[in-house]
Amino acid sequence: MRRTSFFLPTLRENPAEAQIVSHRLMLRAGMVRQASAGIYSWLPLGYRVLQRIENIIREEQNAVGCLEMLMPTIQSADLWRESGRFDGYGREMLRIKDRHDRDLLYGPTNEEQITEIFRDAISSYRDLPRVLYQIQWKFRDEVRPRFGVMRGREFLMKDAYSFDLNYQSAKRSYNLMFMSYLRTFGRMGLKAIPMRADTGPIGGDLSHEFIILAETGESEVFYDKNFLTFETPFIGDLNETALEECFSKWTHPYAATKELHDPNKNEELGSNILSARGIEVGHIFYFGKKYSLAMGATVTGPEGNKVILEMGSYGIGVSRLVGAIIEASHDEFGIIWPDTIAPFSVGLINVAVSNNDCDRECENIYIKLRDAGIETLYDDRNERAGGKFAEMDLIGLPWQIIVGPKGLKDGKVELKRRCTGEHLELSIENALTRISST
Amino acid sequence: MRRTSFFLPTLRENPAEAQIVSHRLMLRAGMVRQASAGIYSWLPLGYRVLQRIENIIREEQNAVGCLEMLMPTIQSADLWRESGRFDGYGREMLRIKDRHDRDLLYGPTNEEQITEIFRDAISSYRDLPRVLYQIQWKFRDEVRPRFGVMRGREFLMKDAYSFDLNYQSAKRSYNLMFMSYLRTFGRMGLKAIPMRADTGPIGGDLSHEFIILAETGESEVFYDKNFLTFETPFIGDLNETALEECFSKWTHPYAATKELHDPNKNEELGSNILSARGIEVGHIFYFGKKYSLAMGATVTGPEGNKVILEMGSYGIGVSRLVGAIIEASHDEFGIIWPDTIAPFSVGLINVAVSNNDCDRECENIYIKLRDAGIETLYDDRNERAGGKFAEMDLIGLPWQIIVGPKGLKDGKVELKRRCTGEHLELSIENALTRISST
Repeated sequence: MRRTSFFLPTLRENPAEAQIVSHRLMLRAGMVRQASAGIYSWLPLGYRVLQRIENIIREEQNAVGCLEMLMPTIQSADLWRESGRFDGYGREMLRIKDRHDRDLLYGPTNEEQITEIFRDAISSYRDLPRVLYQIQWKFRDEVRPRFGVMRGREFLMKDAYSFDLNYQSAKRSYNLMFMSYLRTFGRMGLKAIPMRADTGPIGGDLSHEFIILAETGESEVFYDKNFLTFETPFIGDLNETALEECFSKWTHPYAATKELHDPNKNEELGSNILSARGIEVGHIFYFGKKYSLAMGATVTGPEGNKVILEMGSYGIGVSRLVGAIIEASHDEFGIIWPDTIAPFSVGLINVAVSNNDCDRECENIYIKLRDAGIETLYDDRNERAGGKFAEMDLIGLPWQIIVGPKGLKDGKVELKRRCTGEHLELSIENALTRISST
Repeated sequence: MRRTSFFLPTLRENPAEAQIVSHRLMLRAGMVRQASAGIYSWLPLGYRVLQRIENIIREEQNAVGCLEMLMPTIQSADLWRESGRFDGYGREMLRIKDRHDRDLLYGPTNEEQITEIFRDAISSYRDLPRVLYQIQWKFRDEVRPRFGVMRGREFLMKDAYSFDLNYQSAKRSYNLMFMSYLRTFGRMGLKAIPMRADTGPIGGDLSHEFIILAETGESEVFYDKNFLTFETPFIGDLNETALEECFSKWTHPYAATKELHDPNKNEELGSNILSARGIEVGHIFYFGKKYSLAMGATVTGPEGNKVILEMGSYGIGVSRLVGAIIEASHDEFGIIWPDTIAPFSVGLINVAVSNNDCDRECENIYIKLRDAGIETLYDDRNERAGGKFAEMDLIGLPWQIIVGPKGLKDGKVELKRRCTGEHLELSIENALTRISST
């Protein structure tokens, strides 16, 4: 992408309305613009990041056999009356009347809707287990939306729903998603620590939040320092035992949010306990028969008997992750994207546009990167170099190639790694090799 | 994908509520389920098709330099008051009040929103031209939603918006999208005929609908039979002259919807004029300064003067296309997907599950297709062959490979091409070669 053809309205100043660093940086880097309170438009740079995150989630969900679908944003109130949640959900639910005065709502979550679909479609235990998921926009009418996309009203979520015949199978589904979440966040360069959690309005018996650590995180968390040595699990055998082992390993060391923290643990664990700031990026629930019982979702079991389905639900805050990753990965100059979710891998800076050598070599590099399938933002604007350097640092692409007339005389360009700040003078060929081998 | 792990609730009977063939077939093929009037959930098979269509549109938009972004579904009423459309838009607009009693709406289109974003971001003629687009859900509260996804209330649309300095440049943007639309529909196996159209609530001076022909189409259209010989344009030179030539070629022969049809043309064109049923799948508008003037969207021009932006908007009905393609491509047995948008390329039918030879060869074929990157639905259910054949025809995958014990004795499988009905007995290797070379 040529910078002169792109739409990247960066800001020099920190916007007054932004209280936290991710909000400030997303506005300054031209990633989002507020449309109204807690509602954002995603500009091309921000939307690229959102799509990268979506794709990692999608690949990891598909890899463990989850099936993607899409439910509408607008739901009928009758459905929520069936489960009994319509009146109880409170003012966070955006309630709507259509032209025929029928009660609708903008879905804040989809347990009712998926239960209805599954109930009407599946009648035999032979069609179990199944996990269905969607990546869809949701709306929660927060009283005071703030912190940019971290606590917006319209937000993108991945929500999955599992359907099983019995507890044992449901626990396997829970463990499967638990493992898949560790992988998903790991691929984004994040260490997510699972913490036992309250179930809130979703309900149920068993629940974990996945919390990533960031100095600027929204809440205090406590965890065993052993977590820091744990590696992201591989998808190996997906049998019950292997999944239970992964679950046990990752739930054995102590971890708790401030609300659920047991102060006695401070003494018990001593120097093994660490306290930090954390951000919730995922939340999983096993709630058994809560919705299936209320809504009559049953199958015929192996003995011809009627069995009420066991269910769980599994959420990842997709748009929230964009902010959360920035909270976890930035410096005073701007964002530092992990390689896997960067909007472009390389920022190519032409220091002296109109200098023939610089223009020719930049075109040459740009085409080589394109042919190698490496996405590049080429800053071909006729502007002073200082502004270009600052903008590249701000938008946080993993690599910068800086092409200037002086270096070119020796056949060299400058290669900068954003996350380490490392600068190297290299031949063009070596610079490209180094990028390709990341 | 193994059929035993998939979620594909097909129906044997025609659902009573479905009046048109695409609606019937989408319900029967387990592609969608109605959530409430005019609002659908997309089940995994249907969602795969929707994603294929989205991707073709995205690739073709990107190929001509359009920039993808995403605006929220919920908009502020104030924005529509700025353009003067809030009161005038009528009851099709879903109006909402949030918990603070502020007026919101579910966007039926996004001219206001994009104009606000562009106005606040761009101040110089040097940042023009630009075309921004999104693929986003919209809501129009139809009085009588019907015909399934063809006239739903919540629907997926690609909407693009062009910003130019003057008429000449704006016309180039219009011509660029015109050409891009012909390519987009061409890649889906459709011949779309551009027809001069009314501008309706969007407004403006120049507008074309893109209509595909289908016996069961929603409205009558008239067109010059020369259109049938026209080939999909290539993306070659995107200069003004080449684009104007493409536009002229495709707008020169006569074409009109019933509303705009001039009956004198019947005599004038004689046997050259054809009448048929058509379905609108795209609609483009040049409306100049309508929104930019009302909302103060200007840039500084080359002479330092203030210039009001020239705009156009360009829509494709993404979810509607799923129905439209089925209307254009089906037979008495079910859907016939064009290769480019089929949910899977191949349906692999094991005629005798539990027969060792059949199981082994099916696994073998399934793995080979997977390794070749060919998406396959493998019907591994232990059910009678007749039901499997009927289901494969119903869901309309381009190829079927039928594996039975009798054929295997001679090392043969049956290869069926859905669109022609052609059946061939081939060795496994030849069958796979034939599929790969499509």
